[in-house]
Amino acid sequence: MLDLCLLGCGGGMPTPERFLTSMVLSYNGRKLLIDCGEGTQVSLKIYKLGFKSIDTILFTHFHADHIAGLPGLLLTIAGSGRKDPITIMGPSGLCNTIEGLRVIAPSLPYELNLIEFNAEEKCSQKMGAFNIRALPVDHGIPCIAYSIYIPRNKKFDRQMAENNNVPIKLWNTLQKGENCKYQNVVYTPDMVLGKERRGIKVSYCTDSRPTSDLIQFVENSNLFVCEGTYGDEEKFQKAVEYKHMLFSESAEIAKQANVEELWLTHFSPSMINPEEYLQKTRNIFSNTVLGRNGLKKSLGFEN
Amino acid sequence: MLDLCLLGCGGGMPTPERFLTSMVLSYNGRKLLIDCGEGTQVSLKIYKLGFKSIDTILFTHFHADHIAGLPGLLLTIAGSGRKDPITIMGPSGLCNTIEGLRVIAPSLPYELNLIEFNAEEKCSQKMGAFNIRALPVDHGIPCIAYSIYIPRNKKFDRQMAENNNVPIKLWNTLQKGENCKYQNVVYTPDMVLGKERRGIKVSYCTDSRPTSDLIQFVENSNLFVCEGTYGDEEKFQKAVEYKHMLFSESAEIAKQANVEELWLTHFSPSMINPEEYLQKTRNIFSNTVLGRNGLKKSLGFEN
Repeated sequence: MLDLCLLGCGGGMPTPERFLTSMVLSYNGRKLLIDCGEGTQVSLKIYKLGFKSIDTILFTHFHADHIAGLPGLLLTIAGSGRKDPITIMGPSGLCNTIEGLRVIAPSLPYELNLIEFNAEEKCSQKMGAFNIRALPVDHGIPCIAYSIYIPRNKKFDRQMAENNNVPIKLWNTLQKGENCKYQNVVYTPDMVLGKERRGIKVSYCTDSRPTSDLIQFVENSNLFVCEGTYGDEEKFQKAVEYKHMLFSESAEIAKQANVEELWLTHFSPSMINPEEYLQKTRNIFSNTVLGRNGLKKSLGFEN
Repeated sequence: MLDLCLLGCGGGMPTPERFLTSMVLSYNGRKLLIDCGEGTQVSLKIYKLGFKSIDTILFTHFHADHIAGLPGLLLTIAGSGRKDPITIMGPSGLCNTIEGLRVIAPSLPYELNLIEFNAEEKCSQKMGAFNIRALPVDHGIPCIAYSIYIPRNKKFDRQMAENNNVPIKLWNTLQKGENCKYQNVVYTPDMVLGKERRGIKVSYCTDSRPTSDLIQFVENSNLFVCEGTYGDEEKFQKAVEYKHMLFSESAEIAKQANVEELWLTHFSPSMINPEEYLQKTRNIFSNTVLGRNGLKKSLGFEN
């Protein structure tokens, strides 16, 4: 199972009620974190998610509400006994930003591998089971939306294997995707494996105005986590000015992209009660859920 | 009144139960903050202390648990509408540290005045009503203990004024500490003012081993806020190694320095229940109080 936890749902500044927006994905005991505002390490602690197994940290952009918690988190991970490297990815400016912040975390017992995405292009990276894709979005400074895909192995097809005269002793190896040579005949995985099967796709976008690329990028996600800085339609001009989205705009993307579920997050501190705007948002995209500190979900492969 | 609030009582890392050690002093509507770990702005918000009137921020040293909250705080202060400069003081390395952290807070609508204390010497500065003294302490990296003194005006002495033949119309001006010239005679404040009167003194020391200088430095404080990283006497070697204090060591300083009250703070995350060690500590210095998030006190001039 892919286990997801939204660590916070606030934008701009942390408040007593809302940690800043950040999400952690856990799969087979390894973790990937997206964004790390001030207080993210406290939220990780509250939801008992552990620090040592965080292998990858993705940053959407370098506004403080998305990264100010990094130095503290790196030190707490150091305290957990981790020695393995951590990979940090983000838009251009990553190296410079990390260098600046490390003035208060200069010595770590593990390496940091930094991968700076070109903010003009789509990029992809594979980190363990996580296939990470990055899309530049529209926030005034370089900013990236992410999709995380866990591919699913093709199913073993006994009938195919028999039709292709594959010796039984090779079935297991071929099923794992490796080629085999036996009695001078080469056998390949496609001789025993059936059709492609859908994996698990989670998309994450804060902060941005809606963009046309974004719809295709998040298409068919099992879960789309998207900013909804303002619920009130009257905040449209503000959303345009500060390059954020209304609930209705996020829901429109979710609908057009045919995602299964939408989590709204990154609420403006000025929006006291996001519930007020939920029903109208569900009129656009029915499976909309309001983000909250510690909101969790587990996603498995479909039957 | 001088109003004090301990914003947190934790050391090392923020936890769900303890904000990191930081203190705010408010006097005549102006504020001085000491240290600013991750989450300090949330604590300021919880205790409804406001951001706009923070004129001065003092740093003891630049370990992340004392400063990681600065970029977020500066941005939140910016959001409060402040335009007046803020003065930040700390040991050597201040300018470099602030420059690093400002990579995520590059544009502020107010200036920062940075005052770097020479870590080898006692220093003093006056900021509004606050007379700030700095003492280098022993923590492995440059680290400073602070004392904040609010001086009290001398009392007007009518008998003295009459004995010195000071015209009544000059009494008010002289009482404010200004010289006057009247009918070719110069009058000075000491002609109408009585003896020195005790002001209010608050001292703050995290992180350090006990030092002999420290006792004299905090002498006769109304309140001494001191780290007590470990309560258990068996942690003595650890305290020496990491340059911290046991509760008993802080209490010994409080006793020898003849302070009125001791607040212990900067508790190690490994110390779950500081209460356990309180009685033994009070056997050394009876007016010991355990720090907690939001612990408050108001200090006035003595009668």
